Amino acid sequence: MAKAFHERVDAAAVRADSLVCVGLDPDLSKFPASFQGMPVRKQIEAFNGAIIEATRDLVCAYKPNLGFYAAHGLDGLQALIATREMIPSDIPVILDCKVGDIGSTATAYAKGYFDAWGFDAITANPYMGEDSLAPFLAYGDKGVIIICKTSNAGSGDLQDLTVTSGDRSATLFETVASRCAGWNESHPAGIGLVVGATYPEQLATVRALAPNLPILLPGVGAQAGELEASVRAGIDTNGRGLLVSSSRGITYASRGDDFAEAARNAAMQLRDAVNGVRVA
Amino acid sequence: MAKAFHERVDAAAVRADSLVCVGLDPDLSKFPASFQGMPVRKQIEAFNGAIIEATRDLVCAYKPNLGFYAAHGLDGLQALIATREMIPSDIPVILDCKVGDIGSTATAYAKGYFDAWGFDAITANPYMGEDSLAPFLAYGDKGVIIICKTSNAGSGDLQDLTVTSGDRSATLFETVASRCAGWNESHPAGIGLVVGATYPEQLATVRALAPNLPILLPGVGAQAGELEASVRAGIDTNGRGLLVSSSRGITYASRGDDFAEAARNAAMQLRDAVNGVRVA
Repeated sequence: MAKAFHERVDAAAVRADSLVCVGLDPDLSKFPASFQGMPVRKQIEAFNGAIIEATRDLVCAYKPNLGFYAAHGLDGLQALIATREMIPSDIPVILDCKVGDIGSTATAYAKGYFDAWGFDAITANPYMGEDSLAPFLAYGDKGVIIICKTSNAGSGDLQDLTVTSGDRSATLFETVASRCAGWNESHPAGIGLVVGATYPEQLATVRALAPNLPILLPGVGAQAGELEASVRAGIDTNGRGLLVSSSRGITYASRGDDFAEAARNAAMQLRDAVNGVRVA
Repeated sequence: MAKAFHERVDAAAVRADSLVCVGLDPDLSKFPASFQGMPVRKQIEAFNGAIIEATRDLVCAYKPNLGFYAAHGLDGLQALIATREMIPSDIPVILDCKVGDIGSTATAYAKGYFDAWGFDAITANPYMGEDSLAPFLAYGDKGVIIICKTSNAGSGDLQDLTVTSGDRSATLFETVASRCAGWNESHPAGIGLVVGATYPEQLATVRALAPNLPILLPGVGAQAGELEASVRAGIDTNGRGLLVSSSRGITYASRGDDFAEAARNAAMQLRDAVNGVRVA
């Protein structure tokens, strides 16, 4: 079996001295004007290719979000596959798809996302319970990064509800964090959590409940999460264990033909800002 | 704007005198032996085409599950699009994808699943809150069917947890049902719920909390849910409001070359069994 996902992310983080994960979420309206007129698929592939080339030595992972490819139908999905293939094999690639379905369906998704398309990890939704995640975890070498406290304003609608069990009470997202830490006992190095950088206090709580799980941290860029507080709250005892994910803040740092150079600079800035907190 | 999703399902249910929704979940290992050797895409299209032809006068909706197409990569997704196009326009088609992501991503998914691929409804996951569902609901004429109490054995892991608010307490799935009924006030005829036929008591509770929402009921066939108890518990005051979904129980009723005829008989049997309970 290949090395476990978490080990591969950690190796990439050490190699690049970086906890930055670049989100590849194509939005054609933000591509340089010179791209206009090219077929959609070519636009996305050319854009992502330039971003990957400009940032590959600065990241510990890439994370394309399925939605931004599905938006363009088959053309978009062909570009997704091409994007995955452009990424060097020693940099793990997370398909952000927030999947969650009954076991037989989860098995089918795993066949597609892991076997057919070669992703190293997926994001998943915990609402349907452990048996809906088991087919992904069964791979052993693949990552299953479960949404816990998400970055959006409405995340509290359910995630902040108070759950009681006997005389103990906790929020739903805390309960998810504890459960995932427990599930990880039987699936070592398989499970991670998603916590938005928009909620640093909640991130500290999650880190305490799940000291050994890697945490994917979206929301530091366009969503204006608090970087310093989040990194401080989220890193593990090794000063790693965190994937600081930025999409728009890096890929659309410039809307001109210098977008790749601008993305490199933005990725470097984020890497250094994160490392500054890690050292401090 | 086109007629709302719920009105179209209801019209189809009245026309066919049927609450049956056929799940189109291709599993090549269950196709007739005579299909072997054909390219994957052709196999799925030929199989689904025959099933649709054999059952179109017996159903109120079709429901392909994304996972069973994604399992085959691009070939599978091409077959999914072709399948959607084969279904007559007066029969609503639900893409079972259990989607849920932040607003900008949800907007991208909606563009793909509704605009590019032409589905009439999607299934969605409530874990990320109302703002993650809003971009789908904004269409007005599309259905957003939210998973509430799912059919799998592990559904209770989170869905059965007790949520307390002030001096009131309810399970998480009851809380989701109540919230969805509330959200539907601002999005009339847009929201539906998924409740597994494997949990008829919980279905009765959900129906009481959300008297006007359509309920998608999977799990009556291969998952061995209790049909009679579920239909009794789930129908609305008009004796409808329920989409009784069966996939494997209909499409793989025979593994031989008579699969389409067998599917027709199985769909007819299910329709009649459901109608028997509705009349009683």
